Amino acid sequence: MDSLVEWLLFLVVFLSISISSSSAGRIGIPRGAAVLKKHHLPLKRAFSGDLHTYFYTQTLDHFNYKPESYATFQQRYVINYKYWGGGAVSAPIFVCLGAEQALETDLQTIGFLDDNDARFNALIVYIEHRYYGKSVPFGSREEAFRNAYRMGYLNSAQALADYAEIIADIKNNLQASHSPVIVIGASYGGMLASWFRLKYPHLALGALASSAPVLYFDNITPSDAFYSIITKSFRETSESCYQTIRRSWSVIDSYASQPWGLSVLSSKFRTCYPLNSASELKKELESIYVVASQFNQPAYLVNRVCAAIDETQTDDILFKIFAAVVAFNGNNRCYINPPNPESQTVTGWKWQTCSEMVMPIGVGENTMFQPNPFDLNTFINDCIRTYGVAPRPHWITSYYGGNDFNFILQKFGSNIIFSNGLRDPFSAGGVLEHISKSIRAVTTTYGSHCLDLFPKSDNDPEWLTKQRNIELRIIKGWLVTYYADLKAFQKG
Amino acid sequence: MDSLVEWLLFLVVFLSISISSSSAGRIGIPRGAAVLKKHHLPLKRAFSGDLHTYFYTQTLDHFNYKPESYATFQQRYVINYKYWGGGAVSAPIFVCLGAEQALETDLQTIGFLDDNDARFNALIVYIEHRYYGKSVPFGSREEAFRNAYRMGYLNSAQALADYAEIIADIKNNLQASHSPVIVIGASYGGMLASWFRLKYPHLALGALASSAPVLYFDNITPSDAFYSIITKSFRETSESCYQTIRRSWSVIDSYASQPWGLSVLSSKFRTCYPLNSASELKKELESIYVVASQFNQPAYLVNRVCAAIDETQTDDILFKIFAAVVAFNGNNRCYINPPNPESQTVTGWKWQTCSEMVMPIGVGENTMFQPNPFDLNTFINDCIRTYGVAPRPHWITSYYGGNDFNFILQKFGSNIIFSNGLRDPFSAGGVLEHISKSIRAVTTTYGSHCLDLFPKSDNDPEWLTKQRNIELRIIKGWLVTYYADLKAFQKG
Repeated sequence: MDSLVEWLLFLVVFLSISISSSSAGRIGIPRGAAVLKKHHLPLKRAFSGDLHTYFYTQTLDHFNYKPESYATFQQRYVINYKYWGGGAVSAPIFVCLGAEQALETDLQTIGFLDDNDARFNALIVYIEHRYYGKSVPFGSREEAFRNAYRMGYLNSAQALADYAEIIADIKNNLQASHSPVIVIGASYGGMLASWFRLKYPHLALGALASSAPVLYFDNITPSDAFYSIITKSFRETSESCYQTIRRSWSVIDSYASQPWGLSVLSSKFRTCYPLNSASELKKELESIYVVASQFNQPAYLVNRVCAAIDETQTDDILFKIFAAVVAFNGNNRCYINPPNPESQTVTGWKWQTCSEMVMPIGVGENTMFQPNPFDLNTFINDCIRTYGVAPRPHWITSYYGGNDFNFILQKFGSNIIFSNGLRDPFSAGGVLEHISKSIRAVTTTYGSHCLDLFPKSDNDPEWLTKQRNIELRIIKGWLVTYYADLKAFQKG
Repeated sequence: MDSLVEWLLFLVVFLSISISSSSAGRIGIPRGAAVLKKHHLPLKRAFSGDLHTYFYTQTLDHFNYKPESYATFQQRYVINYKYWGGGAVSAPIFVCLGAEQALETDLQTIGFLDDNDARFNALIVYIEHRYYGKSVPFGSREEAFRNAYRMGYLNSAQALADYAEIIADIKNNLQASHSPVIVIGASYGGMLASWFRLKYPHLALGALASSAPVLYFDNITPSDAFYSIITKSFRETSESCYQTIRRSWSVIDSYASQPWGLSVLSSKFRTCYPLNSASELKKELESIYVVASQFNQPAYLVNRVCAAIDETQTDDILFKIFAAVVAFNGNNRCYINPPNPESQTVTGWKWQTCSEMVMPIGVGENTMFQPNPFDLNTFINDCIRTYGVAPRPHWITSYYGGNDFNFILQKFGSNIIFSNGLRDPFSAGGVLEHISKSIRAVTTTYGSHCLDLFPKSDNDPEWLTKQRNIELRIIKGWLVTYYADLKAFQKG
């Protein structure tokens, strides 16, 4: 990995869940995205010669038949034909289901497909999620996000229906009706992948759901699990680092309560603009720890942050913390609150969490953070205030299930891989145990968020390579069984 | 069975598919409903002491988050607690998923639940389908059906989501979180039941889908199969009856082409109002044959109709046909075109077929009817003319599957019974072969539409009792396995 800066680029794609979920009961002010945005490099791989871009005329609302539901928008998808064995031999189709970002980010970050498709003779497809990138209804992003009347169509069920239509269209165009489709997704995209297999088994033979916290809804997963995992990562890395961070909050509060205290804090953290409140600073710091933990691998961000804290020789605890900020961000003119317009990911995901993707994540006692329990009522009221409509916090489990997931799916579903790195705080809401012979949990002790889908590298630890190979072997197994079944079926 | 008139009451519930689907490429003018409406007797069983009525505040649009999607309506459901073993022992819950009619009709016609629930200690629930009966949004039926803006929310995906919410709510209220739910439905309701099991396996352990033509979409089932089965029924009942019907159409046409011909036809068929066209008469006759065939059992309507035709001694072929009309309808003051307002079932189902439930049924060559192939373009244009929006004829198979149904579901789904009577023309689009060990086809050679769900009677033929017992045994098997699994699951 060339540099932290370059590597941080990869983070952007899987970040957004933490952005708002870590808001702990408030509508999250974006943090991680602001931190990382400045590292966003020009894309290298996107739209290379192997990639062909298409637009599908997509129905705005699949579940309503009002005239306005028939409005359409152009949904972008990209196909790489390079390895494709063809529809005549029913060669497989691997489809990356986009999540809350532009398609370019998937192309840049998800290396799993390119690294492995040659051996499967697979067609590679990336589909952009509605409302992100160029797949925006109502003419422009500004119009699409104008208000709840326009954003109402941005939700997972509509997105899955989009994918269904495009996958069916591609198979039809390529005369590949019996080509098995494997859907792949990361984080929210991983949830979509697993849900797609459950809801559209006729269109996807299997799903690889990387770091998909499908169980972080309602009360299935303890609200405080997310921040407990982060705390554990830091504490296992360095007890003194953990203690320093833990103590830092009250020091900040203590400064803030003094006259001129915010000025002093602004100066100590070399902020781009004077701080308006202590929470402005605290949120940004919290975000650094969340991101460092969630994306620890392969740049070992927690080590880096803790090393800065531990190695900075001073009695001033805030100077230690500032060293961590610099270690995380690199050398900048200023820190903490740079003038950053909200990214499309942040804008879109804020809406999604305030409509259906309500993940009740709060900070419990006994973490290195200040306690901040998730309060559903506060959350709902904040959403109403912001958008004029309330979230539907139980709909995800009503529509996709979640309670007694193991019990129910062992007899029902099949062909899903839930992959997780246990250092990833979202793994708390992931499926970490095998559900059945064909619904598998593949976990790594040290892995971080979506690490298995990153492009492979010579520096990859052995356990990561092993994780990927297990996933590939499982997918291979699905395909072998599928082709045998298909043969038997076609013989009648 | 007391009388034909009383029995015909039962027909109303499962009729509507034939009404519009037999329209053969046009938007169907209701026929069967008009014929049967006058036989609609006061309901006997509805709202007896065992039945408790409730209303659930239902979300208008489950798949959109626009402010108007949050509108609610009161959805009616009924519970019979009489046999219920209780949530503490996880006693089962049998849920009848209403289709395109008022709940009263289900209560009257579906005897399967009452006949058998005692032995299961089951809770019995009937849920009314949105837009029918009392479960109407926008304040009144008239408002709800005012235009496509209002009707857009009437579709199967929204209906399934309604059922999901109500089932979850009932289980929650009764503290019956581990009570297995079996969903049951007839005709369109049968489709909903099977789809519910596929889409919401976390809420329903299994489904009994009676006479559910889930494969009569797109080009999965030959367009002409429906009328071929009717023709076969008539021909096997009586060759001369079949020949008479077959020849009658051109006789009618020949009259209609003469001056005063329509007057003569009006007189011969003792119509309530003078006929405006030959097709007015022909549609009504066609409807009689469709209904007689679809609901042949247990009143042996085809026999009755054919006996009238065969036993009426005359050279006037139309007099024979008129005898069939009388045999079918009973003695009335007039026939064919009585002044009948359209029923809610007809109004609602016309919209449903013009939005998503596009069943391409046409009359092929070599039937006893005049050929009238299904033409999708004509159908679409008729829908646009009527409602201002086009149907989405491929959406059902995109959302629920259908192509290669056997192949796909053998590895994926479980716990569905597809029951069919092969004399029922809709059986052409039914699942007639076992898909897997737990997705079973239960068919009877002589059965008609949804016969297995009718209340049992001492006159039931042995094969019908056998069919019901097979279904009960399968459901029993699901429950036995479920309780064993649950026990193992709870032990950890």
